[in-house]
Amino acid sequence: MSEFDLIRQLHERINGADGSDLSACVVGIGDDCAVLEIPQDRQVVVTTDTLVEGVHFLKTSDAQSLGHKALAVNLSDLASMGAQPAWFFLALTLPAPDLSWLESFAQGMGDLARSAGIVLAGGDTTSGPLSITVTAIGLIEPGMALTRDGARNGELVVVSGQLGEAAHALEILKAGGEPGPAGRVALERPEPRLQLGRQLRGLATSCIDISDGLVADLGHILEASAAGAEIDVDLLPGFAILARLPEEQRRQLQTSGGDDYELCFTIPGNRREELGRMAEECACPLTVIGRINDSGKLVCTMADGTAFVPRGRGYDHFPGDTNRAGGR
Amino acid sequence: MSEFDLIRQLHERINGADGSDLSACVVGIGDDCAVLEIPQDRQVVVTTDTLVEGVHFLKTSDAQSLGHKALAVNLSDLASMGAQPAWFFLALTLPAPDLSWLESFAQGMGDLARSAGIVLAGGDTTSGPLSITVTAIGLIEPGMALTRDGARNGELVVVSGQLGEAAHALEILKAGGEPGPAGRVALERPEPRLQLGRQLRGLATSCIDISDGLVADLGHILEASAAGAEIDVDLLPGFAILARLPEEQRRQLQTSGGDDYELCFTIPGNRREELGRMAEECACPLTVIGRINDSGKLVCTMADGTAFVPRGRGYDHFPGDTNRAGGR
Repeated sequence: MSEFDLIRQLHERINGADGSDLSACVVGIGDDCAVLEIPQDRQVVVTTDTLVEGVHFLKTSDAQSLGHKALAVNLSDLASMGAQPAWFFLALTLPAPDLSWLESFAQGMGDLARSAGIVLAGGDTTSGPLSITVTAIGLIEPGMALTRDGARNGELVVVSGQLGEAAHALEILKAGGEPGPAGRVALERPEPRLQLGRQLRGLATSCIDISDGLVADLGHILEASAAGAEIDVDLLPGFAILARLPEEQRRQLQTSGGDDYELCFTIPGNRREELGRMAEECACPLTVIGRINDSGKLVCTMADGTAFVPRGRGYDHFPGDTNRAGGR
Repeated sequence: MSEFDLIRQLHERINGADGSDLSACVVGIGDDCAVLEIPQDRQVVVTTDTLVEGVHFLKTSDAQSLGHKALAVNLSDLASMGAQPAWFFLALTLPAPDLSWLESFAQGMGDLARSAGIVLAGGDTTSGPLSITVTAIGLIEPGMALTRDGARNGELVVVSGQLGEAAHALEILKAGGEPGPAGRVALERPEPRLQLGRQLRGLATSCIDISDGLVADLGHILEASAAGAEIDVDLLPGFAILARLPEEQRRQLQTSGGDDYELCFTIPGNRREELGRMAEECACPLTVIGRINDSGKLVCTMADGTAFVPRGRGYDHFPGDTNRAGGR
């Protein structure tokens, strides 16, 4: 299969053969560049994320899940800004063209793309070690993007959904075990919180998606906002299966595990009551886990009031590695 | 060095530490996404291209040249659409953080970025086999983008610059030799034809950049335009060093070599005289090499009128491989 056939196949499978939803894409796949028409009252929101085999996913990962996840991690970034998904670009490096692999990959990516209302507008395919880079473009009303730098003293820290399940599933897989269905879904088919992100415009004062783990990502908010926070790690929402783990392990998974793709955001204390309605509308639990302060530090406590020390990177220092790609 | 330090370093070295040219980038590096302000009377032009070690460049390639080329191949796509460069995003996968390598890489990329007036607005760094994906965003006046589908019967086929030198240099390197300085520059530091692309708005009826080789890329124009063409391969412009090669080798390099990053475009026959002034303004030779016809085929002839058969992929079929990434 040539590169050109491959691009065409991906295009048809991801967007649907009729390309009917490409109306705002003036020039699409098949030219040197895509040409996009931007509505007058919108700013453009852009993110790019790479998944590399053996780093971000196991060699045993199935193609359909990979197609889903490579797009999902980028949509999660759009969600964290409150943006509406519009177009994406796929740079796909794979060892050899394998039609059945590509069909599954495109199925997973296409299903999510259609449900999120985002259109594949271009890309590049090349041979090499398996690696997937997606660049996603969204739209936002001017000045309405949710950034990391607006958290203020006294505000509430909130997280969506459940934390720790993806990291738990990965631990099980790495140990040769088989995670349950909820673990599989959390690890391989995270659902970007697009609707929630849109609803948080005008409410959240800061927002981030939890890709590197709660402590690291909340740390980014605190750093950008020049603020501190105290959170209670025993308030962190999780599936029942996590409650059966030793408490230390459960707390570490939930604070430092990463790959959650939930949103962590801050809201003014006097708007707490709006969370209930929003959680219902988005069909997604929203849990207040702590409060912003002016300490300049992130302090984690447990239900009994004693300190908890997460293994993951905190706010004060990033000992750092380049193994995780959630920095953006 | 952590991922965060690495992103900051790249940012400062590529854009300059003051970030003074980031004015239209409402939210830049350091949040989940970049937020970009698009001028009201512009469409957005987007392209993405990946370079993989061992596929698009040799393991011996120096970092500064790689930084240049990874951006240049994307700028060349913007040039071929007539777009003005605006922002780019860098997804960098590298085996281990190596500060001196990164400094050189950022130097090469930053020098080109500043000269082209394009700003690094975001990216992702991760560990893995060396691979560089750049997504470049440009701006174009509505309806003015140069596409592949406008070539019409009787129009002239024109190429910019010199062809074949990059492919020749690669042949020499692969044989263990050392190409001359012009060959090195052609292969490692191609200059995207941005000014020419801008000037071709309103003149060229179709345009493409020559990344896959002239025959393959002109073939894309013919396919998109449902047209044919006849070109004289002995009219192809080349540096003197190519003239010393056996004629068959020279012709093959120039028609099928690829990696030229020159523009191939069509213009109406009655506007031929405009090429001279334009060549002078862009400091770039412009050579008429043939004419569009309605044969549906690309025919190559030599100076004596006999047919020449290029080794590279032609218009009628793409036997295909995924080793080259110039499809977009």
